[in-house]
This record gives sequence, structure tokens and C-alpha cells, in this order.
Amino acid sequence: MIVGDLIKSPGSWLSMKHDTGVVISSRARLARNLRNSAFPGWAGEDERIRICENLRAVFEKIPALKDFIFMDMAGIEPMDKDILRERHLISNELSEKGTGSALVTTRDERVAIMINEEDHLRLQAMIPGMDMTGVWKQIDDVDSELEELVEYAFSPELGYLTACPSNLGTGLRVSVMMHLPGLRLMEEIELVMKGLARIDMEVRGLFGEGTEAFGNMFQVSNRTTLGESEETILNRMTDVVNDLVTHEMNARARLMEQRKLQVLDHTGRAYGILMHAGVLTSVEAVDLMSALRLGVELGIVENLSVSRINEIILLTQPGHLQKMIKKNLGPLERDKMRADLVRDKLQGISLV
Amino acid sequence: MIVGDLIKSPGSWLSMKHDTGVVISSRARLARNLRNSAFPGWAGEDERIRICENLRAVFEKIPALKDFIFMDMAGIEPMDKDILRERHLISNELSEKGTGSALVTTRDERVAIMINEEDHLRLQAMIPGMDMTGVWKQIDDVDSELEELVEYAFSPELGYLTACPSNLGTGLRVSVMMHLPGLRLMEEIELVMKGLARIDMEVRGLFGEGTEAFGNMFQVSNRTTLGESEETILNRMTDVVNDLVTHEMNARARLMEQRKLQVLDHTGRAYGILMHAGVLTSVEAVDLMSALRLGVELGIVENLSVSRINEIILLTQPGHLQKMIKKNLGPLERDKMRADLVRDKLQGISLV
Repeated sequence: MIVGDLIKSPGSWLSMKHDTGVVISSRARLARNLRNSAFPGWAGEDERIRICENLRAVFEKIPALKDFIFMDMAGIEPMDKDILRERHLISNELSEKGTGSALVTTRDERVAIMINEEDHLRLQAMIPGMDMTGVWKQIDDVDSELEELVEYAFSPELGYLTACPSNLGTGLRVSVMMHLPGLRLMEEIELVMKGLARIDMEVRGLFGEGTEAFGNMFQVSNRTTLGESEETILNRMTDVVNDLVTHEMNARARLMEQRKLQVLDHTGRAYGILMHAGVLTSVEAVDLMSALRLGVELGIVENLSVSRINEIILLTQPGHLQKMIKKNLGPLERDKMRADLVRDKLQGISLV
Repeated sequence: MIVGDLIKSPGSWLSMKHDTGVVISSRARLARNLRNSAFPGWAGEDERIRICENLRAVFEKIPALKDFIFMDMAGIEPMDKDILRERHLISNELSEKGTGSALVTTRDERVAIMINEEDHLRLQAMIPGMDMTGVWKQIDDVDSELEELVEYAFSPELGYLTACPSNLGTGLRVSVMMHLPGLRLMEEIELVMKGLARIDMEVRGLFGEGTEAFGNMFQVSNRTTLGESEETILNRMTDVVNDLVTHEMNARARLMEQRKLQVLDHTGRAYGILMHAGVLTSVEAVDLMSALRLGVELGIVENLSVSRINEIILLTQPGHLQKMIKKNLGPLERDKMRADLVRDKLQGISLV
């Protein structure tokens, strides 16, 4: 099973780089459609299947997609779809589709393409840490090569045409996953969120649209795709994120200066619960791991790496958890297994 | 300082006996007034002082009160009043009084007498575990000897006269402090509370009237003092408490049968937080100690005695905590000191 291969380790975008610890990963995605084919929402099953097959053949010619994995949504079990969602490879919307929709991903999961989600093509690049230039280059390479091989739906006035007007123009959405516990603990996060909304930035939780920001993890992305160049979008995102990183680092400094006892308490309780709970929900696990991550970054927790934390967060998501023991579990069994796994993975860590 | 002597150990009623673990202590109190003296609420300061002095002299003649401690409320600092309240020796009402009100207590704290609270005399006996006969005998002895030496306000029709009609008649209120975590965890506690209200039993929290039932500790007492003999009141309380003990033990058995994982989780989390928190409020400390107590009684927690638990609960109350280091602390400092003390006192315990 292909998904089985993936889950042995986190995607490389999650495990390879670690700067300030505030930015977890950078992501860019392009919405593209084929000229002369109906948009997926209007296309019949035959047409959608034909589109999938044609694109699959085209991808074989693109060096950046070498050795890609192709997954027809019709053949994917629900548990495996959960895993793909948890790894940010497919959207909730694609996971609900079957025949005529597919996922294509490189083996390192840095480039993933959804076929026949809302648009014919959703090209995604994801890399660890903050690197708008890098992530843009990665997705632009694939897009440019693809544009040589297929004809995109494009209007000289509007730019790339998309199923939903909110993606029209560049079709570019960039997003950065950030860990902002300092702003949360200093009770400044609401203010920051309001500020982001005012400059037309969208903020979502760890698992995208409609999810809560648990674990103090926030996905910040641009709302506007039309009337701005790609460069403007990328530069603005870089400025915004750098600003947020500065705010977060300031908040952490003030936290250690003014509220050190509360930080120690926050970390200590997280450690105590993670090491001794009998059951853990996935939301609680991420929340507590967020506290440990902050503890690591502030030098309060020892013998724990950030990549181990990322691994634990990913492996304790419901899909990954069930895949690991190859069966469906009830919520309580899952919560027990999660608590056991976390305890096991955290053995040997210590509080300063 | 007299209060300083008391706090070296818990009162003997709290530390000596341990049956099922469900009943912590039994208490009986009698409301009495002196004939030919105005009730405390109507008496002037001079009269109240005279009453205190007269009674103090009378108490010297009662063998059961040998070596008693006399504390004039006017001379007691606020912190020491907190300690007396935390030890269940005085009520909130007495702690607000000054000159002309006093506390008399035996050194083992099993008999305590409030002078000029709402009534001239509030005689209290308190002993560990469930023992209505024992606690009644203890208070009846003092009352009978006292009745030989002073003249009580008594009406052949109504019985003993009291400031508030709710105490009229026998003037007897018996109460039992119970620990009911099983019923709480099985979500049956509300039902039980409603049942108690229907048979005219009053339920209060750990620190009496108006306090929340934190730590799953409940004080159950009779509401009626009039129209029933002392024997009827005592027998009814015994029946009610035996019934509650049976319910609680059944709940615990079902808990271990049907929800063992949750019990282990409940205990594990309490242990984890108590061992690693940087700050603990007094309410949270009692709640978590309740979980450990249940753990001890179910054989999940080892190397921890119930008397150690009682000691921790008492010593971490705000008054005791501040007395221990002989200064007033802000809430955060208190919560830190409490967390440090608890961690220290729990060293060496382990989860099965």
C-alpha cells in the first residue's frame, strides 16, 4: 500500500529545518485549469477520468516530479484519506471525492498536486521553515514545465481562470504555518489576529479551513490573488511573517522576564499530563505538545528535539494512529493508544 | 502563640481513624444559651465580656475540657483566624467577631466551644471516621456537666431556646464529612444530592455554609432540630450515611469494572499535575488530592497514606501556608509555595 510507505516518517517539509522555531513550514499553491475542458464541478465522470489520465502522462515528462506517487481517490480507503489530510497532501474537499479525482505527490511530499478538486489542478509546494523564495521557486518550476505541455485556461485581463473567483488572477495562495505560544500566553494573540484581518490576511488552524487554532499553531495566508503580481504577494507575506516572528520573540522575552513562574507552570503541567494521562484526545495532545515545544525553545525542556515533537504531533493524529495498528479504533481506544504512544516517545526528556 | 502550637499537626479528628475512606469525620454541635442573659446579637459589649469570663471559669471545672485553650477573638490576628476556620474550630461568623467572643478548644481539637457566636454557646465535638454514638457521647458529656453549672434558656414546650428558630428544640446538628469521588465520576452525585434534599438533609462543601463542594468532599447534616429526639436525629443520620457509603462503594466498584481507564487517567493526571505544576490554587490542590485519595483507596497509588493526604489538604490552606513561613503572601506567591510544598510532601509516592 502506497500510503503505508508514506507514514514511516513525517514529510521532509516537516522535519528538516528549524530556525527560530516560530515558523514551522512555508507553503505555496497555484490553482490552474485546462483550456477546453469543463471545470471539475461541471465535468462528467468520463471527462474527469480522461483529465486524470492525460495529466498523469504529462507529469511523467516533468523532471521535478520524478518517481511521483499517483493515487486515484476512488481506490483510497477512508483511513488513508485521513492520513493524506493529516499530512496536508489533500484537502477535505478532495478527500470526499472518488473516481476522476487524484493526488500526485513526490516521495518527499514537497510537491503535491490535487487533480479535479475544485480546479483541474492545485499545485502545492511545501518546505520547512520560512522560505517564500524557495517555496515559490519549487512550485513555479513545476508550473512552468507544465505550461509547456498543456494549455491553461487564461485570460489576458483576468489572468488564470479558476472555479471560484477568489482564486482568479495569479491563482497563488501562499501560507505559513506558525507556532505562536508566546503571543497566546501574553494574551496578545487576539490583537495580532485582528491586525492580520485588517491587512487582508487569512488565519486558519493546523488543519486548514474551518479548523480551530489548537496547539497555538496558525496558518497565515493571503486572501487576495487578483490585481497583484506573484512577487508582490510573496514579498508581502515575507514582511508579514517576519513581523509576526518579531512579535512572537518579543512576547517570549517578556514572558520569561515577567511571567517566568507561569511559563514553568505551563510547561510542567504539560509534561506531567503527557507523562501520566491514561487517555489523550488529539486536540489536547497537540495543545500539550505546543507547551513542550515552547519549553524546548526557551531552554526549559531538555532531551527533546523539535523534529521529535513534529513527529509526535503527526503520528498521534487519528488516521496515522489507526494505520499504525492497522485497524479502526473507537474514540476511547484511540485516546488510550495516543496516550501510550506519547508517553513512550517522550521517555528520557527532562525539565530543567 | 497558641495558634502556632495547633498547626504543628492536624487535629486528632482528622488523622486517627480510617475505615472505608468514605467518611472522613463525624461532628455534633449543640446550640445553647444562658437564661437571664441577652442573646449575643442583643447583648452589649460589657455583657458579652462578662459572659465569656464567667464561662471560662465554669469550664475549668469540667474534666472533659482539661487543659483547654481559650482564645479571645479580639486578640487573634486575621491569619490565625483563617487557620482556626481551616481547622473547623470556628465559623465564618465567629471569625468576624472581636471583643466579647471567644473560642475554647481542647488540645486535641475534639471538643471546641464558640462563645458568643450567634448563641452564647456552640458546643462542638469532632472525631475521625463514622461514629455518631461516639461523637454524641463526647458532646453530651460536656453539655451535661455544663448544665449542672449554669442555667440554660429552656422551654418545656420548645426545648432549648436559640437565636435562630432553625436551631430550636434539641439545638443539635450532626454532620458527617464524606469523600464521594466515585459518585461524582459515575455522574450520579446530582441524583444523590437531590435525594438528600428530599429527606431534609443539608449538603455543604468542605468549609461549611456557602462553600463549594470541591475535592468531592461533602458535609451532610440534618436540617431539623425541632420535634425529634436526639436519638432519632442520630439514628437517622447513621442510616443516611451508611446508605451513602454503600452507594459510593458501589459506584467505585462499577467504576473499576466499567471505566477503569478513566480512573487511571484521573489519577495519573492528578499525579502528573501535582508533581510538576509551578503554581496550585487551594481549590485545585484539594481537587487533585481527592483524585489521589481515591487512587490510594483503589490500590492505584502506592506509598501514600490517607493521613498524609489529610495533612497536605490542611497545610496547603491559605492560613496554614502563610503561618508556616510567618508572613502574608500574594495569591501567586501562595500558589507557588503550595505547589512546592505539595511536590515535596508527595516525594516517593508511585502509581501502580
